[in-house]
Amino acid sequence: MMQVIQFPNEADYASLFQRPMLEQKNLEDLINSVFTEVKSRGDEALKAYTKQFDGVDLRELRCSNEEIEEAKSVVTEELKSAIKQAKANIERFHKTQLQPKSKEVETTEGVVCWREQRAIQKVGFYIPGGTAPLFSSVLMLGVPASLSGCKEIVLCSPPNNEGKIHPAILYTADLVGIKSIYKVGGAQAIAAMAIGTQSIPAVFKIFGPGNQYVTAAKMKAQQLGIAIDMPAGPSEVLVIADATANPRFVAADLLSQAEHGIDSQVILLSDSLQLIEDVNDELVQQLAALPRKKIAQEALSHSKSVLFHSLEECLKASNFYAPEHLILASDEGDNLLSEIQNAGSVFVGHYSCESLGDYASGTNHTLPTHGYAANYSGVSIDSFMKQVTFQKVSAQGIQNIGPAVEIMAEAESLFAHKNAVTTRLNALK
Amino acid sequence: MMQVIQFPNEADYASLFQRPMLEQKNLEDLINSVFTEVKSRGDEALKAYTKQFDGVDLRELRCSNEEIEEAKSVVTEELKSAIKQAKANIERFHKTQLQPKSKEVETTEGVVCWREQRAIQKVGFYIPGGTAPLFSSVLMLGVPASLSGCKEIVLCSPPNNEGKIHPAILYTADLVGIKSIYKVGGAQAIAAMAIGTQSIPAVFKIFGPGNQYVTAAKMKAQQLGIAIDMPAGPSEVLVIADATANPRFVAADLLSQAEHGIDSQVILLSDSLQLIEDVNDELVQQLAALPRKKIAQEALSHSKSVLFHSLEECLKASNFYAPEHLILASDEGDNLLSEIQNAGSVFVGHYSCESLGDYASGTNHTLPTHGYAANYSGVSIDSFMKQVTFQKVSAQGIQNIGPAVEIMAEAESLFAHKNAVTTRLNALK
Repeated sequence: MMQVIQFPNEADYASLFQRPMLEQKNLEDLINSVFTEVKSRGDEALKAYTKQFDGVDLRELRCSNEEIEEAKSVVTEELKSAIKQAKANIERFHKTQLQPKSKEVETTEGVVCWREQRAIQKVGFYIPGGTAPLFSSVLMLGVPASLSGCKEIVLCSPPNNEGKIHPAILYTADLVGIKSIYKVGGAQAIAAMAIGTQSIPAVFKIFGPGNQYVTAAKMKAQQLGIAIDMPAGPSEVLVIADATANPRFVAADLLSQAEHGIDSQVILLSDSLQLIEDVNDELVQQLAALPRKKIAQEALSHSKSVLFHSLEECLKASNFYAPEHLILASDEGDNLLSEIQNAGSVFVGHYSCESLGDYASGTNHTLPTHGYAANYSGVSIDSFMKQVTFQKVSAQGIQNIGPAVEIMAEAESLFAHKNAVTTRLNALK
Repeated sequence: MMQVIQFPNEADYASLFQRPMLEQKNLEDLINSVFTEVKSRGDEALKAYTKQFDGVDLRELRCSNEEIEEAKSVVTEELKSAIKQAKANIERFHKTQLQPKSKEVETTEGVVCWREQRAIQKVGFYIPGGTAPLFSSVLMLGVPASLSGCKEIVLCSPPNNEGKIHPAILYTADLVGIKSIYKVGGAQAIAAMAIGTQSIPAVFKIFGPGNQYVTAAKMKAQQLGIAIDMPAGPSEVLVIADATANPRFVAADLLSQAEHGIDSQVILLSDSLQLIEDVNDELVQQLAALPRKKIAQEALSHSKSVLFHSLEECLKASNFYAPEHLILASDEGDNLLSEIQNAGSVFVGHYSCESLGDYASGTNHTLPTHGYAANYSGVSIDSFMKQVTFQKVSAQGIQNIGPAVEIMAEAESLFAHKNAVTTRLNALK
């Protein structure tokens, strides 16, 4: 099933934990032409692309109130109630991230500095369509955006060939208060939110998952000065499990990642060879029952289980790998937390499976993949805010720090900078 | 001097406040070849570029301890003491941004979530050389990196034709505890920090100002998955001043921005035509005495002063423009703060000139330019940290939220996600 490696050297981590190469097809010309089209022809270009790629001829790009009301009547009460429960938890956790104005600091007598958070006023979400309607991503983006106070939230999602967006997506968008929903997908949706068209307003930051075209379009938008949530890569989980772990649980967690796609990566680290072997046996059994068996099997075939001498060594390897999801399936989980350096989200203990965080524990599921946990954070309230700094300097304050500034500005050959201080100090003489 | 516009319509803000176009020279081929060279030839490529562009044949790229000691002996005591005073203020302000582990939230009984900050372990700074040695940028990047606990800090700066980095840069780097200093500049320095060479370690995030080659190389590094501080653009200030402002001070502030470069942008908004006229008179007088007069004059020639009916209207226009620096030169400054949406750093009151924040008030001077204050924050402790989320779910917890997760996972057609929960719920039966 999974390859088993025993006691690797640290020097071999780079090759051992190498991720599948990101497909770096050169889409640049294609993406540039989409942006050019959308810029020059606006809505007409979007409708033409939608006809070409989604097979539907739309009169209006914007979802009507009737469509949203219809979607709300189609979603089952059971699913509605599950979504509401998840929403409540996501709200509870993300609310703790809202920061008040920071405490004023008098860095020198008469020099007072502080920070204030301000929402990014216009944000855009891309939600993929197709067979897996990711309404959970609508929650994970919409809840923090609403809490942050973003004034304008735009959502784009491709229509099916009947010209409709999946009802669970519409229901969830409505639930989190998103009013501007557009039936457009692919790179053209990203171009529309980056540039703006007759119906779709331009936004300052674009969030959400997508295929390679969407990803390439987000990179293009970033080059144009639009912020994006984070770079994209295939989803992944790393499980650290010891003899206290339940092999059935561990195997189920590995499979829940492996079913995402053939490029998903799944890694098991353990100090117990018995556990590794038991998990491999469990994988065989559980795989048989999965609808997405083929995908999961292929993902597992390039995944690895690695035996180490201790949990500390496992964690060191995990920090090297920087997993999107890190599961600590051990009675000792709590003792390892302070050593975690690089991870998107951490699941502590035998009942904390990744699926809970994917939907409803309250943490965000939009997380850094592909090793980006070494330098990026997952989505949070922070992702929807800017931090603005303030300073208020009194006459006393400029007399205290002005002379140092004069010296430094002169040393950097910036005499007008110096003069802005000198003029004031002279006026105070 | 500056163009004066009276009572513009909001519909005209886009053209009125249009920034100078960013020079979008196509440097891609050039930058790609630099990255390819650095990847294949490492240090040898860096030395060859340094010979070509900086006119010096280096044996060692790394600054020796002797060079650092020599620099420390050359910098005047007066400048050292000014730098230390600035450092202390920057430390005091940035320390307030360090976050403890967030409070645990029990989102549902048995489901506990929290966040913890972790430093980005390896960061790289680019500090330009040339006539204006930006040792202040070493403070602004080095202080928060040190406070954050970044393990490895790499600094690259181009040598002069004697093979030396400016002593004030070396002194400041040493003062903030940076040990790894390399004599290499331009796009090749960014490539080295992105890819790694025999002497220069690869980093996870690259910070610092630079010319168009450095900027293009940072964009390339970002495409490779290396994080960067923020997109770059020319520096700018917007001053809102009313009849209570001192025209001499306002003119000095406008000039301190205008001297940066001919593409610097300077904007004055006021509800007093008299103030605008007085500032223009002052500009003429103060310009005459400036060493960088020509640069400042050209920058002013495409800058604007705009008359509005009220300070509130001025602020609305400022939010539209999203200035890097916003100066509120008015007795009413405090009353305007809550209305500020988009700005990098704000200077409140008549003595709070931008130069103070550029060097020594304590706030960071690495700020979003070119309108990026609408979607990016300036550099802070946050820039050197990742936020890792944690969740710990008990048997009770999964019984509480598991059923909702099963329903949602099934609705997204992710059956292995569902199964990770079902397996555990069954074991608890």
